[in-house]
Amino acid sequence: MHFTSEQRLDDAVLEREFTLGEIPGILWTPASASASAPTPLILAGPAPLGLRTMYPRLVARALHAAADGFATATIELPGSGDRPRWPAAEQARADLRRVMAAGEPVTDEIIDALVLPLVDKAVPEWQSALDALLSLPEIGGAVGYSGGVISIGTRLAVVEPRISAAVLFAGSFIPRAVLEEARQVTIPLHVLLQWDDEGNDRQAALDLFDAFGSKEKTLHANTGGHTGVPQFAGDAAAQFFTRHLK
Amino acid sequence: MHFTSEQRLDDAVLEREFTLGEIPGILWTPASASASAPTPLILAGPAPLGLRTMYPRLVARALHAAADGFATATIELPGSGDRPRWPAAEQARADLRRVMAAGEPVTDEIIDALVLPLVDKAVPEWQSALDALLSLPEIGGAVGYSGGVISIGTRLAVVEPRISAAVLFAGSFIPRAVLEEARQVTIPLHVLLQWDDEGNDRQAALDLFDAFGSKEKTLHANTGGHTGVPQFAGDAAAQFFTRHLK
Repeated sequence: MHFTSEQRLDDAVLEREFTLGEIPGILWTPASASASAPTPLILAGPAPLGLRTMYPRLVARALHAAADGFATATIELPGSGDRPRWPAAEQARADLRRVMAAGEPVTDEIIDALVLPLVDKAVPEWQSALDALLSLPEIGGAVGYSGGVISIGTRLAVVEPRISAAVLFAGSFIPRAVLEEARQVTIPLHVLLQWDDEGNDRQAALDLFDAFGSKEKTLHANTGGHTGVPQFAGDAAAQFFTRHLK
Repeated sequence: MHFTSEQRLDDAVLEREFTLGEIPGILWTPASASASAPTPLILAGPAPLGLRTMYPRLVARALHAAADGFATATIELPGSGDRPRWPAAEQARADLRRVMAAGEPVTDEIIDALVLPLVDKAVPEWQSALDALLSLPEIGGAVGYSGGVISIGTRLAVVEPRISAAVLFAGSFIPRAVLEEARQVTIPLHVLLQWDDEGNDRQAALDLFDAFGSKEKTLHANTGGHTGVPQFAGDAAAQFFTRHLK
C-alpha cells in the first residue's frame, strides 16, 4: 500500500489517496486518529461509476463518519475509473442495456453474467485492502462495510470475519446464487431501499432482505429514486455503525 | 374532559387520567409544560388489548416523548378495557379466531367486519379527544399520531388536518377500503413493520406502505415478532417526531 497524495479537509480529516498494487483507493481518517488512539474503520462500498464520479458522495459520507470517530476507505472496482478496461464486464453491461431498451425481460443469465464475475474479482481485492488498512497503526478496532452493489457486500459479510456490521444499499441486480449466500450472513445488517428506484427490482430486494440469516437486520425503505436517499436515512445508517462498531 | 386522577412520574412528567364523556383516557405532560410554553402533542394510538394491559408500554413511550419535549395522550377504544361490551366486535373477533384455528383463509369479508366498524367508531372519538386536549393551555403546536391498528391511523391521517406527522405500526389486518384511503394520505409517515410478526400479513403491510400518497414516507422493518420492536427502532420513531413536530 503506497500513499500517493495527502490533504487535510476541514482541518479535522486527513484524506490520502493510495494504490494497492494497481488498484487506486482513498483513505479518510479523523485528525485525532493515532497509534495510541486507533480508529475503527468503515469500508465504503464500491462505486460502479468510478471513484472520481462518486467522489462528492463518498467524501460527504467520510466526513460524517469522521465526525462520528470512524475512518473510511474505498478502492476502485475492477474495470471502473482509471483501472484497465474489462471487456467481458462491458459486454455484460451492453447486453443488459440492449434488453432493457428493447423492453425485454432481464433474465437470470444476464444478471449472473453482469454481477457474479464482478463479485468474484472484487471481494478478494477488498479483503487485501482490509489487510493493508488494518496494518496501519492509526486504524484499529471493529470494521464495518457500507455500500451498494449489494451482492459484493453480501459475499464479504459471508467470507470476511473481520467485518462485524454492514449497511447495504439495495439498488442493483441480485443473482439467485447471492440469495442463497445471504442465508449464511449472521452479522447485524442495516439495509437501505429506495422505494421508487427506477433501475431496481423492489421485490428482489425484499426477497434478499428476507433471506439474510442475521438475527438483527433492519430495512429502511424511503420514497425517492436511486440517488434520493434522504439525509435522515444517512443519519440512521451512521447511528447503526455507532451502535455496532464502538 | 374531566381529570379524575393525577400523579407525578420521575418528577419530570405529570400523568393525569381523564374521562371524555364515557371514554377513559390518559394524558402525560412534561413538568415544564405551561400556558406560556405549550407542548406539542403525540396521540399515542389505540390499545386493542385495553389501556390497563397496554399501560406499561404506553407509559414507557410517554416518558421517552416527554424527555423529547412532547405531551402524550391516549383514549380507550370502543369495546375495550372498562368500556361497555360491543357484541358485534366480539362476534367479528370470534369469527376471526374460528377461521384461523381451522386453518381457513381470512377473507376480506372477515377483515372488513373486524376493522371497518372499529375505524368508523373510533376515529370521531379521537378527533373529539383532540378538540379537548388542544383546548388545554399547556398543549399547543403540532400534533403527531403514533400507534397500531394501522387502519385507524390511516383514516385519521386522511380526515384530521391537525395531525401533521404519523408513526404507524403495521401489525393488524387491513381492509381493501383502507388501502384505497391510503392514497389520500399526504403527511410524512414513519411505518414500523416487524418482519416476523406471526399475526401479520407482511405483503398486505408492504402494499399499504406502497399505497400511501405521502411524499415523505419511511418503512422501518426489523427482525422479530409483534412485540419485539427493538429499542433503536423506538428511538428512530422518536427522532422522526422531533424532525416533524418541533
